[in-house]
Amino acid sequence: MSHILPKLQVIKIGGNVIDNPSLLEAFLTDIASIPEAIVLIHGGGKIATEMAKELGINSQMIDGRRVTDSASLRVVTMVYAGWINKSMVAQLQAKHKNAIGFTGPDAGLVISKKRNPTPIDYGWVGDIEHVNAQALSTFIHQGYCPVFAPITADKQGHLLNTNADTMAQAISIALSDFFEVTLTYCFEKNGVLSNPDDDNSVISHINQNSFLELKESGIVTAGMIPKLENALKAISQGVHTVKLCHASQVLNPGGGTLISV
Amino acid sequence: MSHILPKLQVIKIGGNVIDNPSLLEAFLTDIASIPEAIVLIHGGGKIATEMAKELGINSQMIDGRRVTDSASLRVVTMVYAGWINKSMVAQLQAKHKNAIGFTGPDAGLVISKKRNPTPIDYGWVGDIEHVNAQALSTFIHQGYCPVFAPITADKQGHLLNTNADTMAQAISIALSDFFEVTLTYCFEKNGVLSNPDDDNSVISHINQNSFLELKESGIVTAGMIPKLENALKAISQGVHTVKLCHASQVLNPGGGTLISV
Repeated sequence: MSHILPKLQVIKIGGNVIDNPSLLEAFLTDIASIPEAIVLIHGGGKIATEMAKELGINSQMIDGRRVTDSASLRVVTMVYAGWINKSMVAQLQAKHKNAIGFTGPDAGLVISKKRNPTPIDYGWVGDIEHVNAQALSTFIHQGYCPVFAPITADKQGHLLNTNADTMAQAISIALSDFFEVTLTYCFEKNGVLSNPDDDNSVISHINQNSFLELKESGIVTAGMIPKLENALKAISQGVHTVKLCHASQVLNPGGGTLISV
Repeated sequence: MSHILPKLQVIKIGGNVIDNPSLLEAFLTDIASIPEAIVLIHGGGKIATEMAKELGINSQMIDGRRVTDSASLRVVTMVYAGWINKSMVAQLQAKHKNAIGFTGPDAGLVISKKRNPTPIDYGWVGDIEHVNAQALSTFIHQGYCPVFAPITADKQGHLLNTNADTMAQAISIALSDFFEVTLTYCFEKNGVLSNPDDDNSVISHINQNSFLELKESGIVTAGMIPKLENALKAISQGVHTVKLCHASQVLNPGGGTLISV
């Protein structure tokens, strides 16, 4: 493309940061200082799990993944879209960042579909079908900083629990028609590590080929694999830059692991 | 004023309707059928009280009014801004109404101030200081149906529990610079009743003078007095029409009690 698109940062912030008030406060101060356009997507953290426990809701797990029954859906919607989202929006507003909290159904921004119950029924879990990038980009051009909670709805109005990493990726891909998007996954590690016990062993660049090698050699495992697959899919579908870094390094362009084609 | 303002309906929907799924469903279907611009403000209902009870949070009451401590603030934010707000937004979207859920801090729409702790400390309760009517009217002109939960924040980013009736009134007054506003309080009664035991004894019109007479004679009492004071203040500060009616009568222009100067 020959025309120049405005820059946009899409930033995913994980549960570990949300669970740490001083880290979250520092992160939001950093976010508020970024002059360019930003979209924030936050995860859930431990609050939902604790709340479910206090309410006596037993979370069923299948293959290590939580099943979202009706009671759990109510808890995650309350915690993610209510408490976490509005607390972050209010704090950003206090720091003079014009934040606006969203879930999928708000302004019809993200439409999902209940995951097929076969072979495994995960309950009220949604897979994203469509992002209304036109409406979302209008909010961004008006100067708002959208803050998304990982809750969406289907066309029939059922709320659905949605993976925040995937939501960040889908939003980044859709907005790449309107912006030069940098997608940053902020988490508790300094980046993708070649030695999980050494915080300084950050792999500075990963591409499709090196990812396959890292996977084969067992250097990246478990939770990091879907994160990197998400990142590589984003790059392959038009997102300009994808980065994985510690939340405290969100302002540092050289920090963390950079993903390229 | 000589210029003609576009019409806007601001509709407050009370907790009794929210607690009744079939009544709420019918109400949202009615709302979705209204062709003109709408702003919805919802109350809380019993869910927050039940949730607080389940979580073992003891609500302290002073003079029959609830004190919002930190634990209660978290519960009302979760229930009002999370579960109720997003459920309503998703249902309206399914009915092809382009709803967007808001609390005070979203887009800096409603700024409040923590209520003075003397003579009575009600805790994290907010009194509205400012409504950003310009930003809100832009959303309405873009075709969105704002749906407000009764949670606001102060300038320091503290979330505050806020009276939904007062929020509806403050929003209606502020938007009267941009719209010819009809404010409708939907509740479980057919209107203001001259005999509380007779649902058909609706007083069709009330103005400032007749309100004072009704109050003096003891015909309107308790919960109805602040509702009518809210309504009369709205009329005196530029709101075109104020109505109190049953939720099922929201489409009936002749139903309920009409408030005039």
